[in-house]
Amino acid sequence: MFDVTELPLIGGAALRARSAARVLRTLPTDAKDGALVAMAEALVERTDEILAANASDVEAARADGTPESVLDRLRLDAGRIEGVAAALRQLVALPDPVGDVVRGSRLPNGLELRQVRVPLGVVGIIYEARPNVTVDAAGLCLKSGNAALLRGSASAFGTNTALIAVLTDAGEKAGLPAGFVELLPADRASVGELLGARGLVDVVIPRGGASLIQRVVRESRVPVIETGEGNCHVYVDASADPAIAESVVLNSKTHRVSVCNSAETLLVHRDYPHLPRLLAALAGSGVALHGDDASRAAHDDVVPATDEDWATEYLSMDMAVRVVDDLPQALDHIARWTTGHTEAIVADSATAIAAFTAGVDAAAVLVNASTRFTDGGEFGFGAEIGISTQKLHARGPLGLPELTSTTYVVTGRGHVR
Amino acid sequence: MFDVTELPLIGGAALRARSAARVLRTLPTDAKDGALVAMAEALVERTDEILAANASDVEAARADGTPESVLDRLRLDAGRIEGVAAALRQLVALPDPVGDVVRGSRLPNGLELRQVRVPLGVVGIIYEARPNVTVDAAGLCLKSGNAALLRGSASAFGTNTALIAVLTDAGEKAGLPAGFVELLPADRASVGELLGARGLVDVVIPRGGASLIQRVVRESRVPVIETGEGNCHVYVDASADPAIAESVVLNSKTHRVSVCNSAETLLVHRDYPHLPRLLAALAGSGVALHGDDASRAAHDDVVPATDEDWATEYLSMDMAVRVVDDLPQALDHIARWTTGHTEAIVADSATAIAAFTAGVDAAAVLVNASTRFTDGGEFGFGAEIGISTQKLHARGPLGLPELTSTTYVVTGRGHVR
Repeated sequence: MFDVTELPLIGGAALRARSAARVLRTLPTDAKDGALVAMAEALVERTDEILAANASDVEAARADGTPESVLDRLRLDAGRIEGVAAALRQLVALPDPVGDVVRGSRLPNGLELRQVRVPLGVVGIIYEARPNVTVDAAGLCLKSGNAALLRGSASAFGTNTALIAVLTDAGEKAGLPAGFVELLPADRASVGELLGARGLVDVVIPRGGASLIQRVVRESRVPVIETGEGNCHVYVDASADPAIAESVVLNSKTHRVSVCNSAETLLVHRDYPHLPRLLAALAGSGVALHGDDASRAAHDDVVPATDEDWATEYLSMDMAVRVVDDLPQALDHIARWTTGHTEAIVADSATAIAAFTAGVDAAAVLVNASTRFTDGGEFGFGAEIGISTQKLHARGPLGLPELTSTTYVVTGRGHVR
Repeated sequence: MFDVTELPLIGGAALRARSAARVLRTLPTDAKDGALVAMAEALVERTDEILAANASDVEAARADGTPESVLDRLRLDAGRIEGVAAALRQLVALPDPVGDVVRGSRLPNGLELRQVRVPLGVVGIIYEARPNVTVDAAGLCLKSGNAALLRGSASAFGTNTALIAVLTDAGEKAGLPAGFVELLPADRASVGELLGARGLVDVVIPRGGASLIQRVVRESRVPVIETGEGNCHVYVDASADPAIAESVVLNSKTHRVSVCNSAETLLVHRDYPHLPRLLAALAGSGVALHGDDASRAAHDDVVPATDEDWATEYLSMDMAVRVVDDLPQALDHIARWTTGHTEAIVADSATAIAAFTAGVDAAAVLVNASTRFTDGGEFGFGAEIGISTQKLHARGPLGLPELTSTTYVVTGRGHVR
């Protein structure tokens, strides 16, 4: 059994969540949906209280010299609160994965076998400044029947405390068990406790930068779902339609540069005849190009690329460019440098498309479409808690079904071996 | 990128496996099946060579004072080699999970979304004395398109070396890439290297005792699938048919005591009227009973149980017994002591059955059937590499589909956001 005295910061919350999880796993969909609606209403009703807490957080962060871009992520206003409330209401419309029969059969001996979706139990989520994640994560965990242990950043602690007070009051009034969502202290040590709470916490999902994810992977004794970096490539085959190549590459790079599904490296087949035009279009859109000799020969403003460029997730208006001899060389390049998030091909050759989709090992492979489509909302999953770049459990956007496990229910009439 | 100089014992093998995995992931089913048949034939043909290596291992283990039961697990003979060859041939008949479309749809914008099964990549397996695991694991990994890094015990190293030589020769002659299966050195440090090889190895599966599994969970930076202990309970409800209760409890406890799906604790509703007969049947079959006061009152030969008994996976002809006030108390007991493997209920009340299957959190819940049915073969999965007791990725018997991940393949016609 777990010794909670080893968890001074999170032990109480984890035990309440564990206890809540036993109730949540059997809660009917109606009860969960009713609570989601009540929570959404309460957020809007108690907007003033939340904004007051948020104003203090923003003020303190500003006094600490936090840059304006980070302050903007931290800041709430009435419209943003309406937005997170609307996200809770949208969860009502999504199907409840709990109870789905994944497979079922009658075995030769007459046993009835069913594999049924069940909640994971207690889900720990570690995330950074945005307070909307507090509400999104609480909602996704509730709809999938899980208790949530939320560990947000210190800078948003006042805001998160106010949000969780509202969600807790409304949820418990709507019949949810105490502990269905718990905010953990923002001390650095609370992360360590969460990562060590094997047996109390069923999974930890880190949402944040590379250093957080590295720490979680290194330290955690609780199973982890890694949501990660996207060093995404677009490969333009010799057979590519030039108009499609240009729009897909530009959209993949420039639509929103700071997100994990934006493209970082362009690989172009040496027989693609429109490389100069493609690079000119990128440069004309403000993209700084870092390329090999062949791409530098095709456009004036390409600075030399090094291995560092192939490895970097720029998250900026920079792009690495390499001309490859053939598709296998593109696959080798991707195999060496990919973070396993999203890889795209622009091609008209069915042979090339088949070789690329079979040969690339990533969460998503986009064919003649922008890398920006790797997203739970775009995939029609309705909501996501992140995009998994690991191969175990769930790969790609993490929607409600990905927040579940399964149980085999086997029914006999006195069957023995 | 991974620095293989940090992996003096396994680095070469891991790189060969990584390279093989890129070929294996695109190999057609026919090619894998042909190699499985060739490997099965080669094992039988080269029986003498394998038995000679095995005789040396057994001799050395005997000289070290290894007990006869362990020697028996280590020992091969012509019949056992026929058996592992037959297991390889049986894999040919199982469906290849790679390429299965798990879900697919046309999105509103016309993008075609497909979630396709792909191999995990490089699978590390750490196991103990039985050399048959070497062949089973190599076969399961091959059929599911994975490269296998096998780390067997030092006592079986000679046998494993001979087996892998046969499999490698036959497999490569049949067209498999070098490195499709690699035997790692049996040094203690090779386990540590395997657990640290994040980026080179996609998953580690420990098959062994509690201390091995604890070490793997503590140390591993590579994702783990835990195959674990079974502290399995049978709950006999007040509504149970007494004949079914007796046969299911006896079979769950006594059919094979040394395995993870055998029962360890019996929970009986206080209104079940046939407790004395049930305990007499267990005692009459040679089961040593450890019970609470109420069960001691029902039968003479019940020694007092402590928390230690509720916690213990006996793996012997011992059983803990507790009389519970009602089904919720049984669920509380199980929630406290379960290892999440298999829990069983004997009942005729549909209400009780529904409450038990909804309330128990385990890989398998058996209704009016022996706990011994939690098994890949019994479930009709054909072969298993172990039984997962974790909630992430795969829970219950690990068959071929559980050795895969998925990729989203999204096809457009120049789609951008």
